[in-house]
Amino acid sequence: MAGSADPVDRARDLVAAATTGDRRSLARLLTAVENRTALAEPALRELYPRAGKAHIVGITGPPGAGKSTLVAALIGELRSAGRAVAVVAVDPSSPITGGALLGDRVRMQSYAGDRDVFIRSMAARGHAGGLASTTGAATAVLDAAGFELVLVETVGTGQSEVEVAAAADTTVVLEAPEMGDEVQAIKAGLLEVADLVVVNKGDKPGAQRTAAQLRAMLVASGGQPRPTDDRPRPKRPEVLITTAATGAGVAELLAALDRHRAAAQDGAGDRARLARAEAQVWAILSERLRDRLVGPGLTESTRATLAAVADHRLDPYAAADELLRRLGIEPPHD
Amino acid sequence: MAGSADPVDRARDLVAAATTGDRRSLARLLTAVENRTALAEPALRELYPRAGKAHIVGITGPPGAGKSTLVAALIGELRSAGRAVAVVAVDPSSPITGGALLGDRVRMQSYAGDRDVFIRSMAARGHAGGLASTTGAATAVLDAAGFELVLVETVGTGQSEVEVAAAADTTVVLEAPEMGDEVQAIKAGLLEVADLVVVNKGDKPGAQRTAAQLRAMLVASGGQPRPTDDRPRPKRPEVLITTAATGAGVAELLAALDRHRAAAQDGAGDRARLARAEAQVWAILSERLRDRLVGPGLTESTRATLAAVADHRLDPYAAADELLRRLGIEPPHD
Repeated sequence: MAGSADPVDRARDLVAAATTGDRRSLARLLTAVENRTALAEPALRELYPRAGKAHIVGITGPPGAGKSTLVAALIGELRSAGRAVAVVAVDPSSPITGGALLGDRVRMQSYAGDRDVFIRSMAARGHAGGLASTTGAATAVLDAAGFELVLVETVGTGQSEVEVAAAADTTVVLEAPEMGDEVQAIKAGLLEVADLVVVNKGDKPGAQRTAAQLRAMLVASGGQPRPTDDRPRPKRPEVLITTAATGAGVAELLAALDRHRAAAQDGAGDRARLARAEAQVWAILSERLRDRLVGPGLTESTRATLAAVADHRLDPYAAADELLRRLGIEPPHD
Repeated sequence: MAGSADPVDRARDLVAAATTGDRRSLARLLTAVENRTALAEPALRELYPRAGKAHIVGITGPPGAGKSTLVAALIGELRSAGRAVAVVAVDPSSPITGGALLGDRVRMQSYAGDRDVFIRSMAARGHAGGLASTTGAATAVLDAAGFELVLVETVGTGQSEVEVAAAADTTVVLEAPEMGDEVQAIKAGLLEVADLVVVNKGDKPGAQRTAAQLRAMLVASGGQPRPTDDRPRPKRPEVLITTAATGAGVAELLAALDRHRAAAQDGAGDRARLARAEAQVWAILSERLRDRLVGPGLTESTRATLAAVADHRLDPYAAADELLRRLGIEPPHD
C-alpha cells in the first residue's frame, strides 16, 4: 500500500488488500473502475480470476416503486442469516449536482459499522464505456472481494439501465400497485427481462389486483424469449408481493432469489454471465479503437471525417469505412 | 417503385418518392432504418446529402410531465403558421406487447389527412446499433423528406434516452410542478442537457414556484459545460411555463425554439450536429467490426473468448486484445 508510482504495482497492492477485507482499498478500486483511471485495467486484470462466485441480483423498476426500501429490507434479511452483501446503486442523479441520494438510502447507514455490508452509489451518466460495462466491472470487484450476493439497483426506465439489470444472474422487477398509464407502458418493457416480479407496497389497496394483472400479462407473453436469446426462458417468472417498509414478504423474496440461483446453474446462468462478459469486452475493444482513432496523427483526420458527416458532405457509412481503413481494416464490401 | 430485387435500386426509388412527398415510401424508409434491414445502408447513403436543413428539436422529461400533449400543441402551433413538422416518438413500451401508445397520441390523429404532419413511434429497446444512432438516422430521413422541424420525443429517465435528446439542435426539458423526490434527482441530470426548460401544467398550483426553483438550480450550476464539451454553453437556458392542454405559452415556446435555432447557427449548432454524426458513425463502425468478429470462421473463436471471460478464465482486457488481433489490429501495449 506504499505509494508506488507504477499502476500495476499499486493495483496489485489494492487488490490484495481489498480481497482480504480492507474496505478503503475496495472503495478505491471501485472509484478506479467507475472513473476508468489508469488503475482500472491492471486492477481488473488482477482481480478477475478471483471473481465469478457471487450471485449478481439486478433490482429494477419505475421511480416510486420502493426499490431502495426493498434493498434495505433485503440487506436486513441477509445480515440476519449472516450473509455478506454488497449493493451497487446506479443513481439517476447528476454527477454535477453531486449525486443527491435517495431518501431511503439514509436507513442503510445503520450498517455503517458492519464489514459484511458494502453500499456504493454510481452515477448513471457519463460512462464512455457504457453503463453495463462499468456496472459489470464494479460487480466483478465486489465479487472478488468475497461478497456472496451483489445487488445492482437501477431505475428501470431507460434502455441502458434495463440492460444493466438484465445482465444480472437474477433480475427482479419491482412494481407498485395502481400506477399510471405511462408507467404501465414502461412496465411491459421491463417484464421482458424479469426473472422475478415483485409487487411492493403490498399493504396498499390494489396490490393483489396488480399482482393478478401482472400474472395475466406474463401468461399472455407466454414463453416469449428475451430479445437476444437463442433459447426460451426456462420458466415463467414468479410474482411475489412484499411490503418492504414492514418487511412482509422479504424472507420469501430471498428464498425465491436463492431458488432461482440454484435453478440457473445450468443454461440460464451461462447466458447472464456471457451477457456481462460481452458488455465488458466490447466496451474495452471500442475504447481501444477510439483511442487509436483519436491518437497522435489521427485526431485531425477523424475530426475532419466526422465534420464532413455533420455537414452532410459525407454519409455515415462512407465515414465508418474511412475510419476502418485508417485502422488497417478493409471495409466489408467496397 | 417496381419491385426491384436490388436493395440499391429499391433504396434509390424509395428515396426519390419519399423526397417528393410520397408518405408510404417515407414510412418504408423509416422502417428500414429502424430495423436495420438491407435497405437501410443504401437508403441513408442516397438521402444523406439531401439532409441537413431541418431543425431537430429534442423534447424530454419524466413520465407524466405532459410531453405528448405539448408535442400535440406544438404541432397545432406550427400548422397554424403553415410549417411542416415531423415527430419521432421514442416509446418506452415493449416491442413484444405491440407498443401500446400513450393516450395523448390519439389527439394527433386529427392530423391524419395533413401531408405536412408526420408522426412516427419507435421502440426504445432492441436497437443493436444504439438508440442515438437509430434516432439520428430517422431524423436524417425526415430531414431529407423536407420537414423543416423534426421533434424527437423521449422519456428522459434513462441514459440513452437523454443522449438522444441531447443530440438535437435544441433540447427542451419538460417538468411538471410539484413532483416527488426521486423525480427531483432525475431532473438534476436532465437539466445538464437543456437548452430550454419548460414547466408544463402551468395551471397547476406550484408551477410558478417550480419555475423559480429551476431558475435557481440553473444559476447554481452556472456556466457549467456539458460533460463532453470543450466550450462553455453559450447561455443559461430560459425557463418557460406552458399549459399544453389549453395551449397557453405554446406560441412563446415556439418563438423561443426559433430564437435558439437562429442563435445556434454558430458553434453550439456544430456541436449538436457533430454529436449526431459521431453516434451514427461509431454505431456503423462497431456493427461492421461485430459482423467481422462473428463472420465465417470467427464465430466459434469469438464465442470461446467470451465464454472464457464469463468463466473468469480470461480477463476482459485480454479478451478485447485477442479479438483486436483477430481483426488484424495490434493492441496498444503488450
